[in-house]
Amino acid sequence: MSKTIAINAGSSSLKWQLYQMPEETVIAKGIVERIGLNDSIFTIKHGEGEKFEQILDIKDHQIAVQMLLDQLIELKIIGSFDEITGVGHRVVAGGEYFKDSIVITDDVLAKIEELSEFAPLHNPANAMGIKAFKQILPDIVSVAVFDTSFHTTMPKVNYMYSIPKEYYEKYSARKYGAHGTSHRYVSQRAAELLEKPIEETKIITAHIGNGGSVTAVEGGKSVDTSMGFTPLAGVTMGTRSGDIDPSLLPFLMEKEGITSIKDMIDILNKKSGVLGLTGISSDMRDIEDAAAEGNEDAILALEIYADRIRKYIAQYISVMNGVDAIVFTAGVGENGDIVRRMVLEKMTWFGIEIDDAVNQKIHGKEAVISTDASKVKVYVIPTDEELMITRDVERLTK
Amino acid sequence: MSKTIAINAGSSSLKWQLYQMPEETVIAKGIVERIGLNDSIFTIKHGEGEKFEQILDIKDHQIAVQMLLDQLIELKIIGSFDEITGVGHRVVAGGEYFKDSIVITDDVLAKIEELSEFAPLHNPANAMGIKAFKQILPDIVSVAVFDTSFHTTMPKVNYMYSIPKEYYEKYSARKYGAHGTSHRYVSQRAAELLEKPIEETKIITAHIGNGGSVTAVEGGKSVDTSMGFTPLAGVTMGTRSGDIDPSLLPFLMEKEGITSIKDMIDILNKKSGVLGLTGISSDMRDIEDAAAEGNEDAILALEIYADRIRKYIAQYISVMNGVDAIVFTAGVGENGDIVRRMVLEKMTWFGIEIDDAVNQKIHGKEAVISTDASKVKVYVIPTDEELMITRDVERLTK
Repeated sequence: MSKTIAINAGSSSLKWQLYQMPEETVIAKGIVERIGLNDSIFTIKHGEGEKFEQILDIKDHQIAVQMLLDQLIELKIIGSFDEITGVGHRVVAGGEYFKDSIVITDDVLAKIEELSEFAPLHNPANAMGIKAFKQILPDIVSVAVFDTSFHTTMPKVNYMYSIPKEYYEKYSARKYGAHGTSHRYVSQRAAELLEKPIEETKIITAHIGNGGSVTAVEGGKSVDTSMGFTPLAGVTMGTRSGDIDPSLLPFLMEKEGITSIKDMIDILNKKSGVLGLTGISSDMRDIEDAAAEGNEDAILALEIYADRIRKYIAQYISVMNGVDAIVFTAGVGENGDIVRRMVLEKMTWFGIEIDDAVNQKIHGKEAVISTDASKVKVYVIPTDEELMITRDVERLTK
Repeated sequence: MSKTIAINAGSSSLKWQLYQMPEETVIAKGIVERIGLNDSIFTIKHGEGEKFEQILDIKDHQIAVQMLLDQLIELKIIGSFDEITGVGHRVVAGGEYFKDSIVITDDVLAKIEELSEFAPLHNPANAMGIKAFKQILPDIVSVAVFDTSFHTTMPKVNYMYSIPKEYYEKYSARKYGAHGTSHRYVSQRAAELLEKPIEETKIITAHIGNGGSVTAVEGGKSVDTSMGFTPLAGVTMGTRSGDIDPSLLPFLMEKEGITSIKDMIDILNKKSGVLGLTGISSDMRDIEDAAAEGNEDAILALEIYADRIRKYIAQYISVMNGVDAIVFTAGVGENGDIVRRMVLEKMTWFGIEIDDAVNQKIHGKEAVISTDASKVKVYVIPTDEELMITRDVERLTK
């Protein structure tokens, strides 16, 4: 009997989940928000719906981790730190180095920090989380689980851009993708539902939340994914543009008097997507509501949002020359029945057919939403990245 | 009985073709190269394989046009200028203004010059050609035929980018596409071959030359196309990157010490594509030869080239929820049997099947290359943009 903790550290936040293993039950979970700012928010949920919340200034990630561990004792969730046998850390960018999750050594940590140029917002925060735990619990085994690892099986034809090849050779400029832990989790679950060995399956996973990516998973391995060198590319997202003609950049910079390309990329990351198209919100629930009230920008944004997902699904059928199952997951994928319907309603030529009466009832739970006649199974599968992290900790500490 | 002339003016060149109408027979054609440079080359082909060539300095487009008209008389191809009843000019960018070809007035010419910001290399050259003819033959009817017009039927869901909507409202930043005259010509021909009213057809046209674009043509109208705001976007081309993650731009600029974004876009336009991937050539014939000799960069470039075309075809099947015919045209589309096979061999799940024994024999001529069992017809159709221009001249001067 042991406990492991899954950590997702952002620049000013730290989300965590404590598991009883090997039962894989969540004993407690929580989040520390506004780290480094005043009025930080410290929350723990545990037991039978019990909640502990405190608002105070938390200066850095190390203090957040210390406070979290102390509270686990204080609230009698654990008896001593020794009960925790492993910590798993989500890390966004693993570059070409990390093809699987790995036990964190000094070398691994240095590499994670070095890879910050591929994820300037995320990797430094992930490294802060790792260091905070190392400081306080120096003897615990910690494991890094990379968002990109699952995609390192992509063949070169899919990860190379058609740019001068020395940019790849010298700077590793290529497609990396993201959300790998989620795509891995739901594709494994889909293979179980298909009752087929995963090696024999062709699955397309649509992780559609505030960010979004679509992945082609053949034989259990990612063979192509819609996000690119960074998570800006691919489908339309809450605030991100997804794919655009790069020629728009100099044109818009000149028109708007933007002198730094980084500022322009910032607009594409933070002020575009459905937020940019509507001026209303980056949250698809708000967009759906506005569309229902007849707001034309929202109707268009909803159409574009579904269209871009469908285009990637169609592409990936051609990448694998077939598909057994399509999976929707993450916030919008699990809850957005309107988006799911809009994505698939124009794919009847492909033999894909959903039962919209069923689809409309499925929010946040596992279900089959295709008709019996559909040539392809369509599933809603709630993702669980934390469980995947915890399983990797178990696997690598054995 | 009348004669019309189709003009394609570049910044230092002028290509033309003289037709006997309504028979649509080519009486003569030619090209003036290196206009504005020394040793300009003036060529005319006419009659039974007769060729006239002269090397001399041709200062500007007006002199080129004067020389061409004088030679038509000199070589007895026409008896007098009166025989020419119309001139059709190819114009690259028509923006949102020109939804069809149009008789050129002063207003139209001014608008074409104004639209130069969407095609800085092409529209000014096209305008020079128009002005040269106006000067010398002021009374002749001239018609502008836009590369973008055919795509103005695209619905908003397909032409809008997921960027702040004011960029569209203020600056018309949207997808325009290109090669419209070619996509229009071959889709009309495909509908004839299908023996169906074009209104009832779903056709995907792949215009694959040094540049390349794929278009979804539903009911005879373009509903989506792979080129974007400019001809940089879409599939991998001879020297153009096609779609890439825009985040690569600041990353590569910093690594390479490139300070101007225009220089970076220049690299994506002129040093990328299969040329960038291989360092060998922008010409697919050279890439195929190198691949046959085992050059790994060339093998990869060939795979990527075919892959990106196939991905657009698959997308566009989902855009129309079906497809009756796929058409290959332009240099590589008409002659590149290896590329055609590579594009389609992974689409058997879609019910698309080509007869490779037939395919291998088809170079530069019209043919069906799908098997009888194929759910979708696959055609090779040589494009003829000049004929399309000439037909528009006829239609608009009636």
